[in-house]
Amino acid sequence: MSERYVITISRQYGSGGRYIAKMVAEQLGIPFYDKELVDRAAEESGISKDLFEHADEKPSQPLWSILPASFSGFGGRVSVTDMPMNDKLFLIQANTIRKIAEEGSCVIVGRCANYVLKDDPDLVRIFIHSTPEDKKNRVITYYGVEEKDAESAIAKVDKTHSNYFNYYSGLKWGSADTYDLSVNTAALGTELTAKLIVDFAKFRNERNRSK
Amino acid sequence: MSERYVITISRQYGSGGRYIAKMVAEQLGIPFYDKELVDRAAEESGISKDLFEHADEKPSQPLWSILPASFSGFGGRVSVTDMPMNDKLFLIQANTIRKIAEEGSCVIVGRCANYVLKDDPDLVRIFIHSTPEDKKNRVITYYGVEEKDAESAIAKVDKTHSNYFNYYSGLKWGSADTYDLSVNTAALGTELTAKLIVDFAKFRNERNRSK
Repeated sequence: MSERYVITISRQYGSGGRYIAKMVAEQLGIPFYDKELVDRAAEESGISKDLFEHADEKPSQPLWSILPASFSGFGGRVSVTDMPMNDKLFLIQANTIRKIAEEGSCVIVGRCANYVLKDDPDLVRIFIHSTPEDKKNRVITYYGVEEKDAESAIAKVDKTHSNYFNYYSGLKWGSADTYDLSVNTAALGTELTAKLIVDFAKFRNERNRSK
Repeated sequence: MSERYVITISRQYGSGGRYIAKMVAEQLGIPFYDKELVDRAAEESGISKDLFEHADEKPSQPLWSILPASFSGFGGRVSVTDMPMNDKLFLIQANTIRKIAEEGSCVIVGRCANYVLKDDPDLVRIFIHSTPEDKKNRVITYYGVEEKDAESAIAKVDKTHSNYFNYYSGLKWGSADTYDLSVNTAALGTELTAKLIVDFAKFRNERNRSK
């Protein structure tokens, strides 16, 4: 009998996915990780938060240039060799993701967590998308993007996430069968979408328990 | 206030999508259309059922070779000109889909219905997929496909559906944002997946009523 929830949420930019993910975590009473994940990976590795935040945007840098003098590997989980900087940041972050999931229930936004945790029997992989109009309204209203820039900003952020995810996972970002559940925010609104995801997670738990 | 449900269900071959669609229709107490749609399009147009069933597999044929002598158009909705045979079959079927939706609630499987009905305010577009193992088991157990042929049969049927859908809709079959809800059958099993879809349709109805 398991009451553990491991929920990863990927989303199109402007779909309200992060907000929905937060509601899901609150409704289930479990920890939520978005920037919190980066903070922890940075703290545990001693590598600057800023580097993690831009790992999917910047070209690689040599690792020795940013590792703290005290750095001595990852407890045997990952050996740090001559791989490109971004690959190392990915692996450090992946270790933090695994640790978080080992601690118990969690909702994790983005960062390839659905791929990193793919062998976890409790994993529920969510994708949140929306219509072009709904996303445009959201980035203008909530993220302060100017109307003239909204469409290109959405395309750019999605492209960045998609390239990053596809490169590390070998899967296809945004393809329905990469996830267990994909929902269009514009169909239900944010509150009911969160409710649906909570129901899905509970159904999954119910099913796992009955096995 | 609307209690009308217009649900289209697209699915990967072997995902259990047709079976789930039937359960959804039963639980909501509304008509179900799969082969029934072809029967009706054939009856209304006088064109052989067999032609509709293979419209997505065969090369085009000249229309005059199969139209009944009594044929005189589609009540002004569609004019039959020199377009390829498959395009004509598509348009005849599209008219039948629109008529069915005008009559009230329905669950329609496949046949680009999610594209044909795209402007219907009550439309709920579902995509059902599953894991390779789950699909393989299902086609062997229920469709009598031999184990050695299972993978290629699944790939072939999906390719046919995807080509047909992409050609007529200009959208992308299997991409999460082509649908309102996509579910992995293997995550919940067929019964709970049907329950989730019914909940989604009710949430959508609730939201439409409250607008």
